[in-house]
Amino acid sequence: MTRATDGAPLRAHERFSINQMTVRQLSLPELVSACRTLGVRGVGLWREPVQAYGVEAAAGLVRDAGLEVTSLCRGGFLTAREASARKAALADNRTAIEEAATLGTKVLVLVSGGLPEGDKDLAAARERIAESLTELAPYAARYGVRLAIEPLHPMFASDRCVVSTLTQALDLAAHFPAEQVGVCVDTYHVWWDDRAPGQIDRAGREGRICAFQLADWTTPLPAGVLNGRGQIGDGSIDMRAWRRRVEAVGYTGPIEVELFNDELWATDGRELLARTVRRFAEHVW
Amino acid sequence: MTRATDGAPLRAHERFSINQMTVRQLSLPELVSACRTLGVRGVGLWREPVQAYGVEAAAGLVRDAGLEVTSLCRGGFLTAREASARKAALADNRTAIEEAATLGTKVLVLVSGGLPEGDKDLAAARERIAESLTELAPYAARYGVRLAIEPLHPMFASDRCVVSTLTQALDLAAHFPAEQVGVCVDTYHVWWDDRAPGQIDRAGREGRICAFQLADWTTPLPAGVLNGRGQIGDGSIDMRAWRRRVEAVGYTGPIEVELFNDELWATDGRELLARTVRRFAEHVW
Repeated sequence: MTRATDGAPLRAHERFSINQMTVRQLSLPELVSACRTLGVRGVGLWREPVQAYGVEAAAGLVRDAGLEVTSLCRGGFLTAREASARKAALADNRTAIEEAATLGTKVLVLVSGGLPEGDKDLAAARERIAESLTELAPYAARYGVRLAIEPLHPMFASDRCVVSTLTQALDLAAHFPAEQVGVCVDTYHVWWDDRAPGQIDRAGREGRICAFQLADWTTPLPAGVLNGRGQIGDGSIDMRAWRRRVEAVGYTGPIEVELFNDELWATDGRELLARTVRRFAEHVW
Repeated sequence: MTRATDGAPLRAHERFSINQMTVRQLSLPELVSACRTLGVRGVGLWREPVQAYGVEAAAGLVRDAGLEVTSLCRGGFLTAREASARKAALADNRTAIEEAATLGTKVLVLVSGGLPEGDKDLAAARERIAESLTELAPYAARYGVRLAIEPLHPMFASDRCVVSTLTQALDLAAHFPAEQVGVCVDTYHVWWDDRAPGQIDRAGREGRICAFQLADWTTPLPAGVLNGRGQIGDGSIDMRAWRRRVEAVGYTGPIEVELFNDELWATDGRELLARTVRRFAEHVW
């Protein structure tokens, strides 16, 4: 049995949720089993492994295990200029909304998309996202799903997400009712931003915090920078301070640990999950 | 003879300056010779190669060639907490100021420094920079040198520079007279920031633009991300738009191309300089 440092059986904090990507070396049944062992109550799922397992089957598996699906990653990629690409993106997002509903989660995380090939106009790309959301938000609402715009670190601005700050995400969300569109606050993406604490206050006032995700900032960044999300406690982010910030404005929902990290993926998935539960207790609570 | 695309001898734009790091495969005499061939009027120098050559000797070499030293890179690294480390940093910055004066440049670029080992407090680190500048700014003024605070991309916030935006750099500079402390605007570091255009207006009004540097944003970023600065025209940044922005607020000084790029460094330095002159003509002017 996995044990905490004091020798008692290790039990996850009730607010802890594990994002599936953190332990992507585990199959969905293995993940569900590991969660049960550690008392993990929530999982954030990703579309690709869920589709591979079957959306209905995945929904049944987690429901039968008493697990809450805290979010589905991800929709978005709404910055294409060509009509056909935009149409395809909207269709794919509608599917993602339906999958979220099937899985029983209220939160679909959106990564907005980067600049189209050869395009240099960030402002115009951000406007296209707003247009797409006008179509998607009411559709999501019909399924009881909220769209969570996730600002990504500015190092992803060209190739992944032109929404780089909480300010921009909240400005986008402001066009829609709070019950339809909110934001996903991820420490890894916003920790450097001196305006982020004020924007968390704003997000709280406006009722826009749909999801709260954690990863630590560690350097050197790996090539491509995507898989450099550090284990909680290994980096430069004061996790407790960020947890208190979102709580201070009323967020009492799940806290998802989402790591993309080649080194961690090369380790045993069950041990990694136990270690992550332990780090959460040490550095977040 | 190197020729432009229309067959005429290639001549650099009068505002073009080459940062020494762009062609670090060239020795200082080789760089000076290549500048003469291409009609390049300005060079941004770095302390380490200048020290290796001898500061007085380097000053004589560029002066005799009629080259303007448009900046010296770099001072800074002012975020240490321990008294001894802070004292050493201040001493090193005084030396950098003296070197800048010897080289005949009015601009010393400052990279502020990252978080000390184990430290997670960005705000406190930024305050320590302000304290250090209080000592350094009058010293620089006595030598006729301005300190140019350079905000670095947020991906460098932990390990290199806690000043991540033009807003922060200008807020820091605001404690000092504009003739003592200003900012260095580098497209690579600020291009993603929707507040940067407004802050360039502010910098113009406040007379704070000391230097303007160019590199393009290309992906995927290399491991460590430092040496991913792309050749002008290869990436996502609208160079002409940024050049017009600084001009619109009165900046008429040199425009330095500063690339750190392993692939470019593996090529012939003289050809790289000629190619950079050509790219500048195509994408900046």
